[in-house]
Amino acid sequence: MKVNGTQYRTIWPSTENPPAVKVIDQRQLPHHFVTKTLMQVEDAHDAIKDMVVRGAGLIGATAGFGMHLAAVHAPSSHYRDAIIKAGDFLKTARPTARDLAWAVDRILATIDSVDSLETMRQTIFREACCIADENARFCEQIGRHGMKLIHDTWIRKNRKRVNILTHCNAGWLAFVDVGSATAPVYAARDAGIDIHVWVSETRPWNQGSRLTAWELQQEGIANTLVTDNACGHLMQQGEVDMVIVGSDRTTHTGDVANKIGTYLKALAARDNDIPFYAALPSSTFDWTLDRGDDIPIERRSGNEITTITGITKDDIIESVTLVAPETQTVNYSFDVTPAHLISSLITERGIVKAEESAIHSMFPEHGPSVPAG
Amino acid sequence: MKVNGTQYRTIWPSTENPPAVKVIDQRQLPHHFVTKTLMQVEDAHDAIKDMVVRGAGLIGATAGFGMHLAAVHAPSSHYRDAIIKAGDFLKTARPTARDLAWAVDRILATIDSVDSLETMRQTIFREACCIADENARFCEQIGRHGMKLIHDTWIRKNRKRVNILTHCNAGWLAFVDVGSATAPVYAARDAGIDIHVWVSETRPWNQGSRLTAWELQQEGIANTLVTDNACGHLMQQGEVDMVIVGSDRTTHTGDVANKIGTYLKALAARDNDIPFYAALPSSTFDWTLDRGDDIPIERRSGNEITTITGITKDDIIESVTLVAPETQTVNYSFDVTPAHLISSLITERGIVKAEESAIHSMFPEHGPSVPAG
Repeated sequence: MKVNGTQYRTIWPSTENPPAVKVIDQRQLPHHFVTKTLMQVEDAHDAIKDMVVRGAGLIGATAGFGMHLAAVHAPSSHYRDAIIKAGDFLKTARPTARDLAWAVDRILATIDSVDSLETMRQTIFREACCIADENARFCEQIGRHGMKLIHDTWIRKNRKRVNILTHCNAGWLAFVDVGSATAPVYAARDAGIDIHVWVSETRPWNQGSRLTAWELQQEGIANTLVTDNACGHLMQQGEVDMVIVGSDRTTHTGDVANKIGTYLKALAARDNDIPFYAALPSSTFDWTLDRGDDIPIERRSGNEITTITGITKDDIIESVTLVAPETQTVNYSFDVTPAHLISSLITERGIVKAEESAIHSMFPEHGPSVPAG
Repeated sequence: MKVNGTQYRTIWPSTENPPAVKVIDQRQLPHHFVTKTLMQVEDAHDAIKDMVVRGAGLIGATAGFGMHLAAVHAPSSHYRDAIIKAGDFLKTARPTARDLAWAVDRILATIDSVDSLETMRQTIFREACCIADENARFCEQIGRHGMKLIHDTWIRKNRKRVNILTHCNAGWLAFVDVGSATAPVYAARDAGIDIHVWVSETRPWNQGSRLTAWELQQEGIANTLVTDNACGHLMQQGEVDMVIVGSDRTTHTGDVANKIGTYLKALAARDNDIPFYAALPSSTFDWTLDRGDDIPIERRSGNEITTITGITKDDIIESVTLVAPETQTVNYSFDVTPAHLISSLITERGIVKAEESAIHSMFPEHGPSVPAG
């Protein structure tokens, strides 16, 4: 997607020697556009943990390229053990995102039969690139499918502007390109549909105000930033035609773990008869979990609530404390929206009900749904 | 209530000459505890408009004392006209709060038959003090009634800690003393009940993190600050026993206009079978409005979303911008929670269903409820 008119992905292998990986440092957005070079698997781990990169798909792609960096520096003896260890290490960076473990395991599956360090390096690099490319392709497919929902609404509204509410950033910055929740928006724009996006701030890390508003502006999509608190009122006032969010982990029964606050938006959507969609590549499906309640919910530092970083009048990035020094906090990063609040899931294969049988029918390679016994 | 161990109200007449009124400058909390002197009705208007003071009850009390300041400086001829004009001016400071117009009208009603400027001054000062004292007394009564709800929950939980979630600041800082939503909390503490309060941040103005967390800390009440987004998750996890919020305007049919985001908490409470109470002195009732949808909802400057003020490492209060310069915003300050999501209202006269007939039975002086016809 475009940044100041230039085309970018969120992550790409650099041609330097030794091999490295470049990412956009999302902690500095929207104030400064800065890229960062990852040299070691530790750099990839820290980039995920410290939210240099974030978002379901990009975490997966970074994990893939992190395995590539581990392979670059693997010792000539026990190189396979080094890679397995690197994978375990990467998985500890964030607990909720499904794509992290998924990408690591996918890389590991490719090296079962490699018989030299050099072959392993090539295999892993190829697979890491493949994960990133597939991620971009799947997001484009999500865009094509989701666009139909926007188009139908546009027709129903006699081609009046369609208002879409999104939460957090499931935009291209959360993936490799195009995004999941934003993919239908970009596709609708390309199809000439008049759209406007309500961007919810997304406390505490403000992915909405810092990332989604910024990326939509860069692409010239009309958007308005509101507080998370305002989303219910907007829906009560008829200002929202549909909600599209992403997913960090989706049970095969259709429950969605996404950024904290998603559940509240889903409740408001149901209360106001507004369709609520989660857009996700199938890599976010957890085929082992029957209940969203069993998804581990990351707790992050309370500093994300008590302090905030912005830019001063003098163009200096500054952190300020918002609360009294003794303030106690708890900072949950995700919540679970139960399947019954979700109108449909938008996947790379099409639109599917958030129901176990429908999901398994669309992804039969994961076996039939097992009746609860 | 206590600030650093000293007893305060949020507003009090000072003994200076010419007469003045003192308030706590709430914009500087929790970083600095500073009082501010209001000399003219314009000062009172600006204090309300610029949120030096805020909160349903305190806005009313400030309006009352604002009328007193207008009377102090009223000309000897046409003094009554000057007071009526001052009242109209004060009413423009904030559009949603019911107590603002209520206090102005109450003051005006006392001067119908006064026959000298000096009598008018004395009458208005007495009435302004009366509004403030009554406000404090009503809040104490709300505390006594609401405490019973907490006590019952405590008994049902076998005297295990009761977790109360509140939104915004309907604490003593929003009134003259004790607060509305917090009054039952303080009363429960005094009754020896083990309580803990979940404080939601309350974007964009952060009344929760800046005021409620601070005032609870000053009173030694266990509390934890969370993002607004986290409130649904806390309820899903069984971490909330009841929700108590305030109200800025309550229709006589039981709909509650309160700080933006209240509606989302009410939806989550219903979805998780958690009782949801609004605590309010009867001055917030609007006896003329049948539908919450007809309550005017204040839109404030988008700057409240795009910039934020905190304290730097060097103890300097600094404002920082959080978003890209081109970011569009809309900033609604209140939303309406429909009566059917509210378990009960806690008023100075007792606990009442959020239903027209029950409300009119408790406040018969406002006439019987009129059947919709």
